Amino acid sequence: MPHIDLEPGVAGIRSLFAYRPETARPLTELAEVLLRGDSTLGRGERELIAAYVSRLNDCDFCAWSHGAFAAHQLEGGNDVVEAAHSEIETAPVSDKLKALLRLAGKVQQSGLAVAPSDIESARAEGATDREIHDTVLIAAAFCMFNRYVDGLAAVTPQDPAAYVSMADLVVASGYQR
Amino acid sequence: MPHIDLEPGVAGIRSLFAYRPETARPLTELAEVLLRGDSTLGRGERELIAAYVSRLNDCDFCAWSHGAFAAHQLEGGNDVVEAAHSEIETAPVSDKLKALLRLAGKVQQSGLAVAPSDIESARAEGATDREIHDTVLIAAAFCMFNRYVDGLAAVTPQDPAAYVSMADLVVASGYQR
Repeated sequence: MPHIDLEPGVAGIRSLFAYRPETARPLTELAEVLLRGDSTLGRGERELIAAYVSRLNDCDFCAWSHGAFAAHQLEGGNDVVEAAHSEIETAPVSDKLKALLRLAGKVQQSGLAVAPSDIESARAEGATDREIHDTVLIAAAFCMFNRYVDGLAAVTPQDPAAYVSMADLVVASGYQR
Repeated sequence: MPHIDLEPGVAGIRSLFAYRPETARPLTELAEVLLRGDSTLGRGERELIAAYVSRLNDCDFCAWSHGAFAAHQLEGGNDVVEAAHSEIETAPVSDKLKALLRLAGKVQQSGLAVAPSDIESARAEGATDREIHDTVLIAAAFCMFNRYVDGLAAVTPQDPAAYVSMADLVVASGYQR
Protein backbone atom coordinates (compact mmCIF):
# COMPACT_ATOMS: atom_id res chain seq x y z
CA MET A 1 0.00 0.00 0.00
CA PRO A 2 1.39 3.42 -0.91
CA HIS A 3 2.70 5.55 1.98
CA ILE A 4 0.55 8.54 0.90
CA ASP A 5 -2.98 8.87 -0.47
CA LEU A 6 -2.59 8.15 -4.21
CA GLU A 7 -5.30 7.60 -6.82
CA PRO A 8 -6.31 3.93 -6.74
CA GLY A 9 -5.99 2.03 -9.99
CA VAL A 10 -2.99 4.03 -11.19
CA ALA A 11 0.31 2.14 -10.97
CA GLY A 12 3.91 3.02 -10.24
CA ILE A 13 5.37 6.39 -11.03
CA ARG A 14 2.27 7.52 -12.93
CA SER A 15 0.34 7.57 -9.64
CA LEU A 16 2.99 10.00 -8.34
CA PHE A 17 2.77 12.09 -11.51
CA ALA A 18 -1.01 12.33 -11.02
CA TYR A 19 -0.52 13.33 -7.35
CA ARG A 20 1.90 16.20 -8.11
CA PRO A 21 1.66 17.51 -11.71
CA GLU A 22 4.08 20.37 -10.96
CA THR A 23 6.96 17.91 -10.48
CA ALA A 24 5.63 15.46 -13.10
CA ARG A 25 6.22 18.03 -15.83
CA PRO A 26 10.03 18.31 -15.50
CA LEU A 27 10.37 14.62 -14.59
CA THR A 28 8.60 13.42 -17.75
CA GLU A 29 10.49 15.98 -19.86
CA LEU A 30 13.78 14.69 -18.44
CA ALA A 31 12.84 11.09 -19.29
CA GLU A 32 11.76 12.09 -22.79
CA VAL A 33 14.98 13.98 -23.58
CA LEU A 34 17.28 11.34 -22.10
CA LEU A 35 15.58 8.17 -23.29
CA ARG A 36 13.89 9.21 -26.54
CA GLY A 37 15.45 12.52 -27.66
CA ASP A 38 18.15 12.94 -30.31
CA SER A 39 21.10 10.70 -29.52
CA THR A 40 23.70 8.49 -31.15
CA LEU A 41 22.61 5.82 -28.65
CA GLY A 42 19.51 3.88 -29.68
CA ARG A 43 16.31 4.18 -27.66
CA GLY A 44 16.53 0.51 -26.77
CA GLU A 45 20.13 0.94 -25.60
CA ARG A 46 19.20 3.86 -23.36
CA GLU A 47 16.22 1.97 -21.92
CA LEU A 48 18.57 -0.94 -21.21
CA ILE A 49 20.83 1.36 -19.16
CA ALA A 50 17.74 2.56 -17.24
CA ALA A 51 16.52 -1.00 -16.63
CA TYR A 52 20.01 -2.15 -15.59
CA VAL A 53 20.38 0.58 -12.95
CA SER A 54 16.83 -0.04 -11.71
CA ARG A 55 17.62 -3.73 -11.25
CA LEU A 56 20.76 -2.81 -9.25
CA ASN A 57 18.54 -0.61 -7.07
CA ASP A 58 16.03 -3.49 -6.68
CA CYS A 59 13.22 -1.30 -8.00
CA ASP A 60 10.87 -3.85 -9.57
CA PHE A 61 8.49 -1.32 -11.10
CA CYS A 62 11.25 0.55 -12.96
CA ALA A 63 13.25 -2.58 -13.82
CA TRP A 64 10.19 -4.33 -15.25
CA SER A 65 8.79 -1.30 -17.07
CA HIS A 66 12.06 -0.04 -18.59
CA GLY A 67 13.07 -3.65 -19.22
CA ALA A 68 9.88 -3.99 -21.30
CA PHE A 69 10.59 -0.68 -23.08
CA ALA A 70 14.13 -1.88 -23.86
CA ALA A 71 12.92 -5.29 -25.05
CA HIS A 72 10.39 -3.60 -27.37
CA GLN A 73 13.13 -1.53 -29.04
CA LEU A 74 16.15 -3.85 -29.07
CA GLU A 75 16.89 -6.53 -31.59
CA GLY A 76 16.81 -9.74 -29.56
CA GLY A 77 14.09 -8.42 -27.24
CA ASN A 78 13.79 -9.61 -23.68
CA ASP A 79 16.61 -12.13 -23.97
CA VAL A 80 19.06 -9.23 -24.31
CA VAL A 81 17.60 -7.50 -21.24
CA GLU A 82 17.83 -10.68 -19.15
CA ALA A 83 21.37 -11.36 -20.38
CA ALA A 84 22.50 -7.84 -19.43
CA HIS A 85 20.90 -8.16 -15.99
CA SER A 86 22.73 -11.40 -15.26
CA GLU A 87 26.16 -10.68 -16.78
CA ILE A 88 27.18 -7.68 -18.87
CA GLU A 89 30.32 -9.26 -20.32
CA THR A 90 28.52 -12.10 -22.08
CA ALA A 91 25.38 -10.15 -23.05
CA PRO A 92 24.75 -9.85 -26.82
CA VAL A 93 25.31 -6.08 -26.96
CA SER A 94 28.11 -3.97 -28.45
CA ASP A 95 31.40 -3.51 -26.61
CA LYS A 96 30.59 0.20 -26.35
CA LEU A 97 27.28 -0.51 -24.65
CA LYS A 98 28.99 -2.95 -22.28
CA ALA A 99 31.41 -0.19 -21.23
CA LEU A 100 28.52 2.25 -20.77
CA LEU A 101 26.58 -0.29 -18.67
CA ARG A 102 29.66 -0.78 -16.47
CA LEU A 103 29.92 3.01 -16.13
CA ALA A 104 26.22 3.20 -15.20
CA GLY A 105 26.83 0.55 -12.55
CA LYS A 106 29.56 2.71 -11.00
CA VAL A 107 27.23 5.74 -10.94
CA GLN A 108 24.58 3.59 -9.23
CA GLN A 109 27.05 3.03 -6.36
CA SER A 110 28.12 6.68 -6.12
CA GLY A 111 29.28 9.48 -8.37
CA LEU A 112 32.61 9.22 -6.57
CA ALA A 113 32.93 5.57 -7.62
CA VAL A 114 33.50 6.62 -11.24
CA ALA A 115 37.25 6.41 -11.96
CA PRO A 116 39.13 7.93 -14.91
CA SER A 117 39.70 4.35 -16.08
CA ASP A 118 35.91 3.81 -16.40
CA ILE A 119 35.74 6.80 -18.74
CA GLU A 120 38.84 5.67 -20.65
CA SER A 121 37.34 2.20 -21.13
CA ALA A 122 34.18 3.72 -22.60
CA ARG A 123 36.22 6.02 -24.87
CA ALA A 124 38.37 3.08 -26.02
CA GLU A 125 35.16 1.43 -27.30
CA GLY A 126 34.23 4.60 -29.20
CA ALA A 127 31.95 6.36 -26.71
CA THR A 128 31.75 10.14 -27.22
CA ASP A 129 31.65 12.78 -24.48
CA ARG A 130 27.95 13.23 -25.13
CA GLU A 131 27.29 9.48 -24.79
CA ILE A 132 29.31 9.40 -21.56
CA HIS A 133 27.40 12.43 -20.26
CA ASP A 134 24.03 10.94 -21.09
CA THR A 135 24.91 7.55 -19.61
CA VAL A 136 25.96 9.16 -16.32
CA LEU A 137 22.77 11.25 -16.23
CA ILE A 138 20.48 8.33 -17.14
CA ALA A 139 22.06 6.26 -14.36
CA ALA A 140 21.82 9.16 -11.89
CA ALA A 141 18.21 9.89 -12.91
CA PHE A 142 17.19 6.29 -12.26
CA CYS A 143 18.78 6.49 -8.82
CA MET A 144 16.15 9.23 -8.35
CA PHE A 145 13.17 7.57 -10.08
CA ASN A 146 13.79 4.27 -8.26
CA ARG A 147 13.91 5.98 -4.84
CA TYR A 148 10.83 8.07 -5.69
CA VAL A 149 8.74 5.01 -6.61
CA ASP A 150 9.82 2.75 -3.74
CA GLY A 151 10.27 5.53 -1.15
CA LEU A 152 6.54 6.23 -1.46
CA ALA A 153 5.67 2.55 -2.01
CA ALA A 154 3.83 3.18 -5.27
CA VAL A 155 1.90 0.13 -6.52
CA THR A 156 3.98 -2.36 -8.56
CA PRO A 157 1.77 -4.55 -10.82
CA GLN A 158 2.76 -8.21 -10.61
CA ASP A 159 1.29 -9.19 -13.99
CA PRO A 160 3.95 -9.03 -16.77
CA ALA A 161 1.18 -8.15 -19.27
CA ALA A 162 0.82 -4.75 -17.56
CA TYR A 163 4.37 -3.85 -18.60
CA VAL A 164 3.81 -4.96 -22.20
CA SER A 165 0.85 -2.53 -22.43
CA MET A 166 2.99 0.25 -20.91
CA ALA A 167 5.70 -0.48 -23.48
CA ASP A 168 3.23 -0.16 -26.38
CA LEU A 169 2.15 3.25 -25.03
CA VAL A 170 5.65 4.59 -24.32
CA VAL A 171 7.08 3.42 -27.64
CA ALA A 172 4.15 4.98 -29.52
CA SER A 173 3.59 8.17 -27.53
CA GLY A 174 6.56 8.79 -25.22
CA TYR A 175 6.69 9.94 -21.63
CA GLN A 176 4.99 13.34 -21.88
CA ARG A 177 1.41 12.25 -22.49
CA MET B 1 39.55 17.57 -13.83
CA PRO B 2 36.14 16.85 -15.35
CA HIS B 3 35.73 13.53 -17.16
CA ILE B 4 34.33 15.26 -20.27
CA ASP B 5 35.16 18.49 -22.05
CA LEU B 6 33.29 21.17 -20.05
CA GLU B 7 33.55 24.95 -20.32
CA PRO B 8 36.49 26.10 -18.18
CA GLY B 9 35.69 28.62 -15.46
CA VAL B 10 32.16 27.32 -14.86
CA ALA B 11 31.81 25.32 -11.64
CA GLY B 12 29.80 22.34 -10.50
CA ILE B 13 26.43 21.48 -11.94
CA ARG B 14 26.25 24.72 -13.94
CA SER B 15 29.07 23.49 -16.16
CA LEU B 16 26.89 20.43 -16.92
CA PHE B 17 23.85 22.64 -17.55
CA ALA B 18 25.94 24.65 -20.06
CA TYR B 19 27.12 21.43 -21.74
CA ARG B 20 23.61 20.02 -22.28
CA PRO B 21 20.85 22.67 -22.21
CA GLU B 22 18.18 20.13 -23.23
CA THR B 23 18.54 18.30 -19.90
CA ALA B 24 19.32 21.49 -17.94
CA ARG B 25 15.81 22.78 -18.63
CA PRO B 26 13.85 20.05 -16.80
CA LEU B 27 16.56 19.71 -14.12
CA THR B 28 16.44 23.39 -13.17
CA GLU B 29 12.63 23.39 -13.32
CA LEU B 30 12.57 20.42 -10.95
CA ALA B 31 14.88 22.20 -8.49
CA GLU B 32 12.81 25.38 -8.72
CA VAL B 33 9.47 23.63 -8.04
CA LEU B 34 10.82 21.44 -5.23
CA LEU B 35 13.06 23.90 -3.41
CA ARG B 36 11.42 27.27 -4.10
CA GLY B 37 7.85 26.62 -5.31
CA ASP B 38 4.68 26.82 -3.21
CA SER B 39 5.04 24.68 -0.11
CA THR B 40 4.20 24.57 3.58
CA LEU B 41 7.88 23.80 4.13
CA GLY B 42 10.14 26.85 4.18
CA ARG B 43 12.74 27.33 1.45
CA GLY B 44 15.51 27.08 4.05
CA GLU B 45 14.02 23.82 5.39
CA ARG B 46 13.92 22.29 1.90
CA GLU B 47 17.48 23.40 1.16
CA LEU B 48 18.54 21.81 4.45
CA ILE B 49 17.06 18.46 3.32
CA ALA B 50 18.98 18.82 0.02
CA ALA B 51 22.23 19.68 1.82
CA TYR B 52 21.76 16.85 4.32
CA VAL B 53 21.32 14.20 1.59
CA SER B 54 24.26 15.63 -0.37
CA ARG B 55 26.47 15.34 2.71
CA LEU B 56 25.40 11.68 3.14
CA ASN B 57 26.39 11.13 -0.51
CA ASP B 58 29.74 12.89 0.11
CA CYS B 59 29.03 15.33 -2.71
CA ASP B 60 30.99 18.41 -1.60
CA PHE B 61 29.73 20.70 -4.37
CA CYS B 62 26.04 20.06 -3.58
CA ALA B 63 26.53 19.89 0.21
CA TRP B 64 28.43 23.20 0.26
CA SER B 65 26.16 25.00 -2.21
CA HIS B 66 22.82 23.86 -0.80
CA GLY B 67 24.24 24.25 2.72
CA ALA B 68 24.92 27.90 1.84
CA PHE B 69 21.43 28.29 0.33
CA ALA B 70 19.93 26.80 3.51
CA ALA B 71 22.07 28.98 5.78
CA HIS B 72 20.96 32.08 3.84
CA GLN B 73 17.28 31.27 4.39
CA LEU B 74 17.18 29.70 7.87
CA GLU B 75 17.08 31.55 11.15
CA GLY B 76 20.34 30.55 12.84
CA GLY B 77 22.21 30.36 9.54
CA ASN B 78 25.15 28.05 9.07
CA ASP B 79 25.15 26.84 12.70
CA VAL B 80 21.83 25.09 12.01
CA VAL B 81 23.22 23.45 8.86
CA GLU B 82 26.33 22.21 10.68
CA ALA B 83 24.24 20.97 13.62
CA ALA B 84 21.94 18.99 11.28
CA HIS B 85 24.93 17.48 9.48
CA SER B 86 26.48 16.26 12.71
CA GLU B 87 23.38 15.10 14.63
CA ILE B 88 19.75 15.56 13.63
CA GLU B 89 18.30 14.87 17.09
CA THR B 90 20.05 17.78 18.80
CA ALA B 91 19.88 20.23 15.86
CA PRO B 92 17.87 23.42 16.53
CA VAL B 93 15.07 22.59 14.05
CA SER B 94 11.43 21.62 14.55
CA ASP B 95 10.48 18.05 15.48
CA LYS B 96 8.67 17.80 12.14
CA LEU B 97 11.81 18.75 10.22
CA LYS B 98 13.83 16.24 12.25
CA ALA B 99 11.41 13.48 11.21
CA LEU B 100 11.60 14.62 7.57
CA LEU B 101 15.41 14.67 7.68
CA ARG B 102 15.38 11.12 9.08
CA LEU B 103 13.01 10.11 6.25
CA ALA B 104 15.34 11.74 3.70
CA GLY B 105 18.24 9.77 5.17
CA LYS B 106 16.32 6.54 4.56
CA VAL B 107 15.61 7.52 0.94
CA GLN B 108 19.34 8.24 0.49
CA GLN B 109 20.04 4.58 1.37
CA SER B 110 17.29 3.17 -0.87
CA GLY B 111 13.60 3.69 -1.58
CA LEU B 112 13.08 0.25 -0.08
CA ALA B 113 14.68 1.38 3.21
CA VAL B 114 11.64 3.58 3.94
CA ALA B 115 9.43 1.77 6.46
CA PRO B 116 5.81 2.56 7.36
CA SER B 117 7.15 3.60 10.78
CA ASP B 118 9.26 6.36 9.14
CA ILE B 119 6.10 7.77 7.56
CA GLU B 120 4.14 7.39 10.82
CA SER B 121 6.86 9.25 12.74
CA ALA B 122 6.68 12.15 10.28
CA ARG B 123 2.86 12.21 10.46
CA ALA B 124 2.98 12.15 14.27
CA GLU B 125 4.97 15.41 14.12
CA GLY B 126 2.36 16.96 11.84
CA ALA B 127 3.82 16.28 8.38
CA THR B 128 1.22 16.21 5.60
CA ASP B 129 1.13 13.80 2.65
CA ARG B 130 2.39 16.59 0.41
CA GLU B 131 5.31 17.33 2.76
CA ILE B 132 6.17 13.62 2.88
CA HIS B 133 5.95 13.40 -0.92
CA ASP B 134 8.17 16.42 -1.42
CA THR B 135 10.73 15.25 1.14
CA VAL B 136 11.03 11.86 -0.58
CA LEU B 137 11.37 13.51 -3.99
CA ILE B 138 13.92 16.10 -2.79
CA ALA B 139 16.02 13.32 -1.25
CA ALA B 140 15.67 11.18 -4.40
CA ALA B 141 16.49 14.14 -6.66
CA PHE B 142 19.70 14.86 -4.76
CA CYS B 143 20.71 11.21 -5.14
CA MET B 144 20.58 12.12 -8.86
CA PHE B 145 22.20 15.59 -8.73
CA ASN B 146 25.03 14.32 -6.49
CA ARG B 147 25.82 11.42 -8.85
CA TYR B 148 25.58 13.70 -11.89
CA VAL B 149 28.10 16.20 -10.47
CA ASP B 150 30.61 13.69 -9.09
CA GLY B 151 30.06 11.03 -11.78
CA LEU B 152 31.38 13.55 -14.34
CA ALA B 153 33.89 15.08 -11.89
CA ALA B 154 32.56 18.62 -12.33
CA VAL B 155 34.80 21.25 -10.71
CA THR B 156 34.17 21.85 -6.98
CA PRO B 157 35.41 25.28 -5.84
CA GLN B 158 37.38 25.05 -2.59
CA ASP B 159 36.85 28.69 -1.56
CA PRO B 160 33.79 29.05 0.75
CA ALA B 161 33.23 32.57 -0.65
CA ALA B 162 32.21 31.00 -3.99
CA TYR B 163 29.22 29.38 -2.30
CA VAL B 164 28.16 32.61 -0.59
CA SER B 165 28.01 34.31 -4.02
CA MET B 166 25.98 31.38 -5.41
CA ALA B 167 23.60 31.68 -2.46
CA ASP B 168 23.03 35.39 -3.15
CA LEU B 169 22.15 34.55 -6.78
CA VAL B 170 19.89 31.58 -6.03
CA VAL B 171 18.02 33.33 -3.23
CA ALA B 172 17.47 36.40 -5.43
CA SER B 173 16.83 34.77 -8.82
CA GLY B 174 16.20 31.05 -8.37
CA TYR B 175 17.45 28.09 -10.36
CA GLN B 176 16.02 28.85 -13.79
CA ARG B 177 18.21 31.76 -14.77
